[in-house]
Amino acid sequence: MDMKSSPCSALRIDGARLWQSLMELARIGATAKGGVCRIALTELDRQGRDLFVRWAREAGCSIRVDAIGNIFARRTGTDEALPPVMTGSHIDTQPTGGKFDGNYGVLAGLEVLRTLNAAGVRTRAPIEVAVWTNEEGSRFVPVMMGSGVFAGAFTLEHALAQRDAQGISVGEALRSIGYAGQAGPAPAVGAYFEAHIEQGPVLENHGRVIGVVTAALGQRWYDVTVQGMEAHAGPTPMELRRDALLAASELVLEVNRIAVERKPHARGTVGTLEVFPNSRNVIPGRVKFSVDLRAPDDAQLLDMDQALRAACARSAAERGLAIDVEQVVYFPPQPFTPRLVQAVRANADDLGYSSMDVVSGAGHDAVYVARVAPAAMIFVPCDDGISHNEIESAEPAHLEAGCNVLLRAMLAAAEVVA
Amino acid sequence: MDMKSSPCSALRIDGARLWQSLMELARIGATAKGGVCRIALTELDRQGRDLFVRWAREAGCSIRVDAIGNIFARRTGTDEALPPVMTGSHIDTQPTGGKFDGNYGVLAGLEVLRTLNAAGVRTRAPIEVAVWTNEEGSRFVPVMMGSGVFAGAFTLEHALAQRDAQGISVGEALRSIGYAGQAGPAPAVGAYFEAHIEQGPVLENHGRVIGVVTAALGQRWYDVTVQGMEAHAGPTPMELRRDALLAASELVLEVNRIAVERKPHARGTVGTLEVFPNSRNVIPGRVKFSVDLRAPDDAQLLDMDQALRAACARSAAERGLAIDVEQVVYFPPQPFTPRLVQAVRANADDLGYSSMDVVSGAGHDAVYVARVAPAAMIFVPCDDGISHNEIESAEPAHLEAGCNVLLRAMLAAAEVVA
Repeated sequence: MDMKSSPCSALRIDGARLWQSLMELARIGATAKGGVCRIALTELDRQGRDLFVRWAREAGCSIRVDAIGNIFARRTGTDEALPPVMTGSHIDTQPTGGKFDGNYGVLAGLEVLRTLNAAGVRTRAPIEVAVWTNEEGSRFVPVMMGSGVFAGAFTLEHALAQRDAQGISVGEALRSIGYAGQAGPAPAVGAYFEAHIEQGPVLENHGRVIGVVTAALGQRWYDVTVQGMEAHAGPTPMELRRDALLAASELVLEVNRIAVERKPHARGTVGTLEVFPNSRNVIPGRVKFSVDLRAPDDAQLLDMDQALRAACARSAAERGLAIDVEQVVYFPPQPFTPRLVQAVRANADDLGYSSMDVVSGAGHDAVYVARVAPAAMIFVPCDDGISHNEIESAEPAHLEAGCNVLLRAMLAAAEVVA
Repeated sequence: MDMKSSPCSALRIDGARLWQSLMELARIGATAKGGVCRIALTELDRQGRDLFVRWAREAGCSIRVDAIGNIFARRTGTDEALPPVMTGSHIDTQPTGGKFDGNYGVLAGLEVLRTLNAAGVRTRAPIEVAVWTNEEGSRFVPVMMGSGVFAGAFTLEHALAQRDAQGISVGEALRSIGYAGQAGPAPAVGAYFEAHIEQGPVLENHGRVIGVVTAALGQRWYDVTVQGMEAHAGPTPMELRRDALLAASELVLEVNRIAVERKPHARGTVGTLEVFPNSRNVIPGRVKFSVDLRAPDDAQLLDMDQALRAACARSAAERGLAIDVEQVVYFPPQPFTPRLVQAVRANADDLGYSSMDVVSGAGHDAVYVARVAPAAMIFVPCDDGISHNEIESAEPAHLEAGCNVLLRAMLAAAEVVA
């Protein structure tokens, strides 16, 4: 569909209205430092959900809640037999989260509905805005729980049985906030788009407004344990040591090198490292650290896995240590749907927004939805790339631009009825 | 003095009696795993002190206790105007300590007294066996407290005012166990010898029985803090990171290199390292670690200090990080007295024991005493170089050999009265 010649080529969302909605939702769970603490399935989450439901009903939507608490606000299409064109994200936050992570994607969807209503635009396919349950995983794991159940990444029963630190289950928490909906198979989705702040520095660094997300990186996480020999730092000459921290330090540098050598998308991070006995004048006998490897395709990720294991084996042999490598998490790489990705790219161009192709380094609900439906994401910059932080911030003009791209891409997928 | 022609050249200590005393003292505070927990100035320390005092009195000694609780058992010389020839060590242990660390030096001194008594040997100078208070520093810091006060490294008032985790002061603890003695200036010492397990692997590694300790390494300890930029491991490309753990890992390797390049005596150790926020998928924003540098002379130690600071500055500049280096402890290198060191070496040779020159990488009471008196140390091997551990162990034959060298060296210094 050629938007330039369509009756809606002049249609734009209302950036001020979008911003106002973001600020109003951000008051629920607002923190003193300007952030938001609205943890999944708490009373504050209920208040946020209720506000979204009220707004969606005011926009003429019907509301459906599924058994894991995902909310779907539906705007009727002229052909209700068609699968909906869907957008959405999440409104739960980290304990010290910001106003935009997740919330932007949900309210950008709401803004699309309001824009269509104001302009009297009808679409052939229905349009839905989803609020996915517990994306952050701060209180209940697994993360991306609602979209994970929707996509069949794990079962509803598994998710409902998870408990928080106080022993409260997901099922109990859903009932207590009134969002335990109907069980049933996940309905088909015609196309899924998710707008999100980038949560990284790439767009800002390149001075671009729209990130055309081509894929989400695959992830392999590991626990690595280095077992050496604890000994006194004073009496033990350098050549007789089996220092676990020396080997671990080499491996921290190696994890970095493995990723740097596989530019531009590979990532390698040691985020946690613990030393035993962690005493000033004792040579470390044991070090435990995490490794997080990410890559855009499985072949590269496997290659990185092998490079990590080879480095560990080499270090163990050279230093006379035992090094154990245990993989603890695997998320496969998830490419997004090329024709939807192209729709995002082309509409950004049409609207005159600078854009660039990016990959999503982090997980998002769209990554699970992409397992069962055509899907794409739209990134907009966030200040200094900072997210999961109360100082998380984004420019109103960028949020507006991302929402206009979303509007266009959704209309193209849902087909405007002339 | 030529021991071969002296009347005492055939004199030997009783290895079985020494071993029996070690095992008997080790029953006070014995742990299930075969170690000893006899922390300074506790009821168990009192019991250990009382046993030593009883044994020393049975050996004909007079007992003197000073204001910091050091015990001096004195065997009269024929010329009581001469300063005593002294030996000693400590009987306090680490919480999970062994039977030999410190205890060996005290009971080797007692065994020397018993041997002289049994053989009816008189010396011109008096002989004293010292039990120094709180060498380990497990309950009260500073470490090597009794010998530190004796040598004027810090004041009696400072030491008495220190408090343990329960708020009990050294002064209170000394009074409660009945070992708060008389204040007064430290008396002159003619010569001081201390026998000790090596607490390291060098003698075992070289197959030698006697370590002739030429000096104690100087020490500089540091707190290093690397301040980078916390960010998400997924969305942040490798080239835009300011990873504090990467810089810290380079510096861990650099600390090792600084010592390895200054063989054989230099030491460089990172014993503690802490990562913030220490989360799997967050690039470390801050890392704090300790550095422990040791060298046999101040010029080399200063050279190592400069190499460390240069490496930190280089890493900070290359990686765009702030690195703060704060020196928190300085112990100057302490050479032992050449003629006493030579007496240890020559007597080991005379007795047919294999020996080698070593440095003390750890602190010992002798290191403080060497500030105010001629001093030397005698090391014997401990199994696998392990100390400060309940499995700490030593061969009876090695303990006997070290005690025979001590006997000879003390007799040479105190002069046998024919």
